Amino acid sequence: RQCRNLAHFLVEDWCLSAVLGISMAFCSVGMDYWIEHLQQWHVTLYKYAQDISDHAAFGAWTGYVLVLVLASTIFVHYVAPQAIGSGIPEVKTIMRGVMLKEYVTFRTLISKMVGLTLSLGSGLPIGKEGPFIHVAATVGTLISKLTSSCNKGVYANESRYSEMLATACAVGVSCTFSAPVGGVLFSIEVTAVHFAVRNYWRAFFAAACSAIVFRLLRIFLQQTDTAVVAFYQTNFPQESFFPEELPIFALLGIICGFLGAFYIIVHRKISLFVKNNDLFKKIFKANLLVYPVAVTMLVTSLTYPSGYGKLIAGHLKFRDVLQDFFGSCSWHKTPGSDSDSLTCKRDLLDHWTGGANGDISIFITLLCFIVTFFLLSLICTTLPVPCGIFMPVFVIGAATGRLLGESVAILFPEGIRGIEDTQIYPGVYAIVGAAALSGACTHTVSVAVIVFELTGQITYMLPVLIAILFSNAICTYLQPSIYDSTIKMKR
Amino acid sequence: RQCRNLAHFLVEDWCLSAVLGISMAFCSVGMDYWIEHLQQWHVTLYKYAQDISDHAAFGAWTGYVLVLVLASTIFVHYVAPQAIGSGIPEVKTIMRGVMLKEYVTFRTLISKMVGLTLSLGSGLPIGKEGPFIHVAATVGTLISKLTSSCNKGVYANESRYSEMLATACAVGVSCTFSAPVGGVLFSIEVTAVHFAVRNYWRAFFAAACSAIVFRLLRIFLQQTDTAVVAFYQTNFPQESFFPEELPIFALLGIICGFLGAFYIIVHRKISLFVKNNDLFKKIFKANLLVYPVAVTMLVTSLTYPSGYGKLIAGHLKFRDVLQDFFGSCSWHKTPGSDSDSLTCKRDLLDHWTGGANGDISIFITLLCFIVTFFLLSLICTTLPVPCGIFMPVFVIGAATGRLLGESVAILFPEGIRGIEDTQIYPGVYAIVGAAALSGACTHTVSVAVIVFELTGQITYMLPVLIAILFSNAICTYLQPSIYDSTIKMKR
Repeated sequence: RQCRNLAHFLVEDWCLSAVLGISMAFCSVGMDYWIEHLQQWHVTLYKYAQDISDHAAFGAWTGYVLVLVLASTIFVHYVAPQAIGSGIPEVKTIMRGVMLKEYVTFRTLISKMVGLTLSLGSGLPIGKEGPFIHVAATVGTLISKLTSSCNKGVYANESRYSEMLATACAVGVSCTFSAPVGGVLFSIEVTAVHFAVRNYWRAFFAAACSAIVFRLLRIFLQQTDTAVVAFYQTNFPQESFFPEELPIFALLGIICGFLGAFYIIVHRKISLFVKNNDLFKKIFKANLLVYPVAVTMLVTSLTYPSGYGKLIAGHLKFRDVLQDFFGSCSWHKTPGSDSDSLTCKRDLLDHWTGGANGDISIFITLLCFIVTFFLLSLICTTLPVPCGIFMPVFVIGAATGRLLGESVAILFPEGIRGIEDTQIYPGVYAIVGAAALSGACTHTVSVAVIVFELTGQITYMLPVLIAILFSNAICTYLQPSIYDSTIKMKR
Repeated sequence: RQCRNLAHFLVEDWCLSAVLGISMAFCSVGMDYWIEHLQQWHVTLYKYAQDISDHAAFGAWTGYVLVLVLASTIFVHYVAPQAIGSGIPEVKTIMRGVMLKEYVTFRTLISKMVGLTLSLGSGLPIGKEGPFIHVAATVGTLISKLTSSCNKGVYANESRYSEMLATACAVGVSCTFSAPVGGVLFSIEVTAVHFAVRNYWRAFFAAACSAIVFRLLRIFLQQTDTAVVAFYQTNFPQESFFPEELPIFALLGIICGFLGAFYIIVHRKISLFVKNNDLFKKIFKANLLVYPVAVTMLVTSLTYPSGYGKLIAGHLKFRDVLQDFFGSCSWHKTPGSDSDSLTCKRDLLDHWTGGANGDISIFITLLCFIVTFFLLSLICTTLPVPCGIFMPVFVIGAATGRLLGESVAILFPEGIRGIEDTQIYPGVYAIVGAAALSGACTHTVSVAVIVFELTGQITYMLPVLIAILFSNAICTYLQPSIYDSTIKMKR
């Protein structure tokens, strides 16, 4: 009898974890598919309209985003307004024992998934990770409810439910970035206070299932990928940095720590302003749609590729921007002047010098990019649509790192040692910056692991760890994490 | 006042973690330095003796090991016999609240460090990891005692001590393999039941300090290394496996799961036999040195390079063996027949075909290697010297993986898809096998992360995770972990 119990337990336990992981992978790939298509259609529409007139182009550029954002706002508002925002603060609250029932219903799930697809598809500077943790937590809750109604014994009690929730969070991160190990660790750091080691293994299993199915599905959908590579595969050589550069990475960590704290402060200020300012309320809260329209207009006019958008690579989505940042070439070198492996291709440089054969300094465009998206991403988090904060922070961090890296590369054109074949790789700085800033804002160290899995390389382990520890220490000292800050505001 | 308290706390807390990490890195590099030299002298002495006569060669080969093992035995016996064995079971017991005081004294520390250097320097098939966790725990205890005697407030209470201990364990693994992230996770899985997330960060900091200092010191000592590379840096291309191979990796995981369970059973049988058999006791327990002499004679006659050692690459140390296993070339291809990038160099093949231009099949030598070291490593764990179990298991797993990988490569000579440029990399199988078997024996998933950090590559994340989950599931179901098994026996 004991043996049968054990088998029963194993099968149920394992199967449920696997089902959770695999179903979330399908969700994630399906949503990614639609988001990508929606974003592509935006660019296609814009290009068609460009042939007609400049005004039509701006109309198409703005109108498309406007339609999607408003659709998302209305859908979320009428189906389940609990889907608004990141969701990580709510999941964290539930995991601490306060049951927010309406946040984990089937209705919220649908609202969050559709709303997120629409809002991300519009190309606003928002992220997928936080909402996806919420989606996973909801799916986990539904699965455990389903089984507890079929079978009274399993998942009836509360501790089992909280285990399921922890697993779900891991799965959520895992299939956003296809980063199973980092996913498990990140979800522990973000949501848990104490952690039982025996759960660890279940979370790992579910996350691995999820990541495997996610990658296989992506191979299946994108016929070009023949092998199983990482999400943002990088191609740095093994000797991409030298011990002498470690202090510079530490400096980058310190900069990102202060920047992260500043981001959290501004986030709180903006959120409180939107919530409490009377004039603001009078103007924007009269109608549900006024505020989204205003914000969308702001974003699209800033990113409009023929205007200010030239300075901030406005026509690129976060995905493409990251690919540029993490590239192994140095942007400040002009192709043709000297052709080595570190010189970028012309079309990459066109993104960051103000269009084809533009001659704006990459330092100006990078600075504009950082400042603009710093503000835009914060404003967008106040929209009444599902939106995460991780990805924007990650991208801003990457830009900061790239900026510092290019400066260092100009200071030491022959590499830090002055020998011909030991050049500076600004791409490594971009990766380190991305990890450091997102680690600072979320108060997590495991972003390091996510970065390794996301880029498929681990050669820059030491720089990433150094920077992340410094940025974390500073930001932890100055401010609560961005999730805790949100929880405090909602009280 | 609160501010001053906080600063005080931060400085003390941070400084202590850093001091722990850095001092352990110095210990580790220092010990590695001596171990490497001791092992090199063994080979040098053997080569000198070979010029005299065969008998002298065997005498030198055996005598050198005998001297070191006996020195280690005697030193440990008279200074502190608590240093015998791995130490992980004891640390685990202490972390659960049972204070084994005599296991964490300065005397034990000296005994363990000197004993371990001698026993590893002799080249016996034993590991460094377990004892090093014990060393780190002892150093951590001493540091916290030192500070609590200077300053009554900090580290006086028990919970602070247990935090320090958890940090120390992470540092121990981190500076054995220079794997900070994997070290933190492995130490959590092996020693803890519940884990407070706020400790995590302290452990990370100490482990990162340790890994950084460890790598920098190694660069400083070995003038050849210019950049910061991993311990066993591998060089696989990004497309080193295909989704079609994933089931084979799962099979490897299943094989390793059963092999791991078998290893634990045999380990228990041998340990109990040594402990309880009357005849054995009469023969070997009469004198302290009889048993070490017998075991050493057994090991050296089996590994003697001109005898049976030909079949098991007896003249190689574990370090070199792993380098061979993890190489990106295929052993079964004879150099000269067709020269592509996957053909091994002649001198690598000489290790595994029975000496220069030998023609023994690599399948026979691999099988002999696995069986021989399976038994030898288990017998060596019963020696009264400090000795770990992780490294032997890791190597045996790598050999198993290499064996399966070479078989697959022969079955699919043109790669799994039959296209010219998609060949099988048996080295990837070796890495997966190593992770799967060591994960199974220790019941840990985080060995995966250690492997990524150890090899400096993360492209084979999915195969490693799949195999490790399968092997873990099987071994967890069949047997307790090798550490728990040891704890049970000692009761």
